[in-house]
Amino acid sequence: MRRFWPDGNRMNQATQLLGISNAIVDILAHIDDGFLEQIGAVPGSMVLIDEERAHEIYGMMGPATEMSGGSVANTIAGFANLGGLAAYIGRVKADQLGGIFNHDMRSLGVDIRLQPSADGPPTARSHVLISSNGQRTMQTYLGACTELSVGDITPATLGAPKAILLEGYVWDLPEGPQLARKAMDIAAENGSAVALSLSDSFCVERHRESFEEAVQQGVDIVVADEDEINALLETSSFDESLDALRGYNNLFAMTRSAKGSVIVQGDEKIVQDATPLTSIVDTTGAGDAYSAGFLYGWVNDRPLEECARLGTFCATKVIRQIGGRIEPGALDDFR
Amino acid sequence: MRRFWPDGNRMNQATQLLGISNAIVDILAHIDDGFLEQIGAVPGSMVLIDEERAHEIYGMMGPATEMSGGSVANTIAGFANLGGLAAYIGRVKADQLGGIFNHDMRSLGVDIRLQPSADGPPTARSHVLISSNGQRTMQTYLGACTELSVGDITPATLGAPKAILLEGYVWDLPEGPQLARKAMDIAAENGSAVALSLSDSFCVERHRESFEEAVQQGVDIVVADEDEINALLETSSFDESLDALRGYNNLFAMTRSAKGSVIVQGDEKIVQDATPLTSIVDTTGAGDAYSAGFLYGWVNDRPLEECARLGTFCATKVIRQIGGRIEPGALDDFR
Repeated sequence: MRRFWPDGNRMNQATQLLGISNAIVDILAHIDDGFLEQIGAVPGSMVLIDEERAHEIYGMMGPATEMSGGSVANTIAGFANLGGLAAYIGRVKADQLGGIFNHDMRSLGVDIRLQPSADGPPTARSHVLISSNGQRTMQTYLGACTELSVGDITPATLGAPKAILLEGYVWDLPEGPQLARKAMDIAAENGSAVALSLSDSFCVERHRESFEEAVQQGVDIVVADEDEINALLETSSFDESLDALRGYNNLFAMTRSAKGSVIVQGDEKIVQDATPLTSIVDTTGAGDAYSAGFLYGWVNDRPLEECARLGTFCATKVIRQIGGRIEPGALDDFR
Repeated sequence: MRRFWPDGNRMNQATQLLGISNAIVDILAHIDDGFLEQIGAVPGSMVLIDEERAHEIYGMMGPATEMSGGSVANTIAGFANLGGLAAYIGRVKADQLGGIFNHDMRSLGVDIRLQPSADGPPTARSHVLISSNGQRTMQTYLGACTELSVGDITPATLGAPKAILLEGYVWDLPEGPQLARKAMDIAAENGSAVALSLSDSFCVERHRESFEEAVQQGVDIVVADEDEINALLETSSFDESLDALRGYNNLFAMTRSAKGSVIVQGDEKIVQDATPLTSIVDTTGAGDAYSAGFLYGWVNDRPLEECARLGTFCATKVIRQIGGRIEPGALDDFR
């Protein structure tokens, strides 16, 4: 079921979705009770750390497993696994972790648009600390990602995909807000739609005004969970958020965990129930998988109701298995 | 339950078990039916490949997961997790995969005796191809391991542990047979026992005479599965092997999968049943875990019958979980 795209062939086909995000390798390890307290981390949080702190945290961690990660990168990988034609812009260094990241993307047929950096900081890694209850706390060192620059975003590297997908975390990069703006401008010129995944509610709080500006001008599709949309709209409940959305023309795809998802565009509102689950194996990556399914429907011109069902279908698949990525053939039993 | 050994402290305690083996990072990926045929690999086999072939195989593989591996390295990690004081001699390069390997060992309190190589081939990796039925086929590029030399084995790097553990795969290295002999000689001078894990039956066939010589002189304990002991003794059944063992004075710990294990030393013979299993999750690493448990008992002067039970206990733990390594606290319910 794996598909191989010889480079030449691949470039001749129109890209449907191009992701711009932080290219990260996850370093996953189980931790003992007390570890989070010891390092002063809030359970379930994601914080950015510098290189020195990264060495310190890693030195305290037990034996780990490494795998390609990053939120929008996971969505792009999932989208490609569904059969979508995907491309990716993110910065890794020409080191072994960078090689692993690019290998994993390319093996899914994703067209990598940037060369790895020859120098500068190493490929980013996120230390994913798994508590005994399965909760994940992330300490992320952005490394080479911080070198992603305005100059990397050009008509040549972007092309004219049906849609581009940005993640909120890009705003954490030194040139993040500017490169995101440039991507939105090029997309507007080329007729590409722009989707923005809000990443996490703390990220929204860090960059609320800039996100708000992007949503007002440049972003067509907003993908968010309940906390993120509330943070963006400065509301305290999902119902308040729904009211506040009346002032927007964008397409909002909002996930609500067990409460399913809600799609809003202007006056149109679609409520999609979650699939009832008797046993949840691992909710990691459910949001990224939802985005992959939803956008796969969207770029293929499916009705919004079907996009929502595709998102839910993919999220459910991921929740039922261990590990956060969609496997090839995931849609074989979708109807 | 994780134990941290500040370096200073750690060095003051007597090492119980020192492993000498190939330091390898596993690159694990699921493969489609047909993949093995495409690359001409025998299902379930382990073959050695060169760097060019490694790039080729990796380029054909889907997204992968990376984790520290290597047979005797897994035994040493498991031994440390049981609470044993372990040290390790193996060669990695000073690259990211080498850093991962050393980190994972050190995080378990294992005392790493060699510095990573500054140049030469990269850290070894084994491409572990997992078929839909769970079977694993390995294509291993030895890289930096091939630089392990006679000069690395000295009274200073070995010290005087209660036992050293060699793996058969070391004989595949250019200076392997010589460095193994030197290790056995230093061990004999220092009163360290020498254990040899026979690795796999094809490895035994590659080096049978040299193994036979080592078992005659230098090796005290032989750890093997049924195929390996038959290959060493050139017998065609386990019963034949038991007869052939009458000529030896070594301690033989032999695993027989569902048939349990048999310990033979001179006239003493202990038959240890396997723990009946209603569901096998993953047999990967069961043999390495058996060695860890058996040797943990042995270095702690436990009776052979208890060593066998410890080995079985650890192997059963590993079979019941996904992934091949013993977790900390594994012995909490041993009795």
